[in-house]
Formats: sequence, structure tokens, C-alpha cells
Amino acid sequence: MFHGRFLEKRREVKAVVRKENRIVRHEMRGGKGDVYMYHILPQEEMMGHGRLFARIVLPAGSSIGRHTHEGDTEPYYILRGNGIFTDADGSRVPVGPGDICTIACGESHAIENTGEEDLEMIALVLFEA
Amino acid sequence: MFHGRFLEKRREVKAVVRKENRIVRHEMRGGKGDVYMYHILPQEEMMGHGRLFARIVLPAGSSIGRHTHEGDTEPYYILRGNGIFTDADGSRVPVGPGDICTIACGESHAIENTGEEDLEMIALVLFEA
Repeated sequence: MFHGRFLEKRREVKAVVRKENRIVRHEMRGGKGDVYMYHILPQEEMMGHGRLFARIVLPAGSSIGRHTHEGDTEPYYILRGNGIFTDADGSRVPVGPGDICTIACGESHAIENTGEEDLEMIALVLFEA
Repeated sequence: MFHGRFLEKRREVKAVVRKENRIVRHEMRGGKGDVYMYHILPQEEMMGHGRLFARIVLPAGSSIGRHTHEGDTEPYYILRGNGIFTDADGSRVPVGPGDICTIACGESHAIENTGEEDLEMIALVLFEA
């Protein structure tokens, strides 16, 4: 019985603390190289507010191609590394740790790693109000 | 005129790429020491979906005390360091990089840095559906 209670406890703990889920994307949105997506919440846990909450790692030389956010927006928050953010009007802006790259709903963006190290960021897709 | 257009461009770029906004909280939610909040989105940019999206840094020995999320939830995603996450039923779970600590809406949680380095995480508060 003591053993049974221990197992029950372990299952419970597993449900509230879990590991990120890694997926590799190749030439994402028409970009270059591989991009690693570490999913924090699956869409079903976002309760209808959005569809992506992830840490994204772009190795040196890789990029996410320009794409449009119809009906949602996606701020990027740079954790580490250096890159170029392309905003809705095509401006190319150098970005690094602590930068927040925003677009309005319906606009497009792209990002590329122009440094020697990994470019690491958090991305959050929220639906238009 | 050329100068004027340049200034206009700079203002536009500033609007889409900006720096995180740092705030220091002392004994947050009844916890210990100082906690550094680097706000990624202010609530008004979350379009009614939530009220906080931030990187949070807990120096060694600091903590965020136990608090309840009435009407919302707040996953913590650990980027760096080691700590103890206290979940809704009081279980104390060791956590480190790549761990996602979830609670259901209406439940409580706490977190403390039990390591020698900073404990760094992303927090996202989403409203109940």
C-alpha cells in the first residue's frame, strides 16, 4: 500500500512538471537550415488564446523565412545570440538579448541568425482579439 | 527632407523592436529576497488573453511565495539554474532547465532558487477560458 501511494504521487508530479518537447524544422517558412522548436505549451493548453508558446533555437546561419500572421500575432523575445529581424515593412533590424520584436496582427516577419553562436528566443502566438 | 525621413524610419523601428522592461520585486508574494521581472508584453498588448508575459530571474536564495491563480493560470518554463517548485497540493519538485511547471486555473504554486546560480524562467499568465 505504501508502494502504491508512492507511485500515485509520482504520476501526479509528472502531470504538473514536465520536460519541453523538441521538434526539428527544416527550412522553416522558406528559411535556411534547421530550426529547433522546444514547445512549452501545446495548443490545447492555451485555452483558445493562441496556438504556440515555444523556445526556438536557430543555429548559426539558419533562419525562419518571412511569413504573415493572419488572425494572430507573434512577439519574439531574444534570449541569446545575435540576428536580423525583418519587420512588416521589410526593415532589417539587428537584434540581441533582451530585445522584443513585435508585429501587429495580419503583418509579416522573418528572423535570421547572423552571429557565430545559436540565436535563442521565446515565441508566443496569440489570437487577434 | 532626407533627414526627416530617416527620423521617421527610426521611430518606426523603435516601435516594433524594443528592450525588455525590468522591475525589481522585493519579497514577492511573501517570498525571500529580490526577484527581477523583465516584462516582455505589457497587459494591454496581450489583447485580453492574459496579464503577464515575462522573464523572471531569482538570484540564489530568493523565492516567489505561494499564491493562488483565481481566474487564470501561469506556467513557468525554466531556462537556467535549479530550484524547487511547489505545486497546488504542496508537493516540492526539484526543477531545472527545460522543465515546464503547470497548474490548473484556480490553483496555487510557489518557486524557490535552491542552487548557487540565478534561477531564470519565463512566466505566462493566461486567463481562464
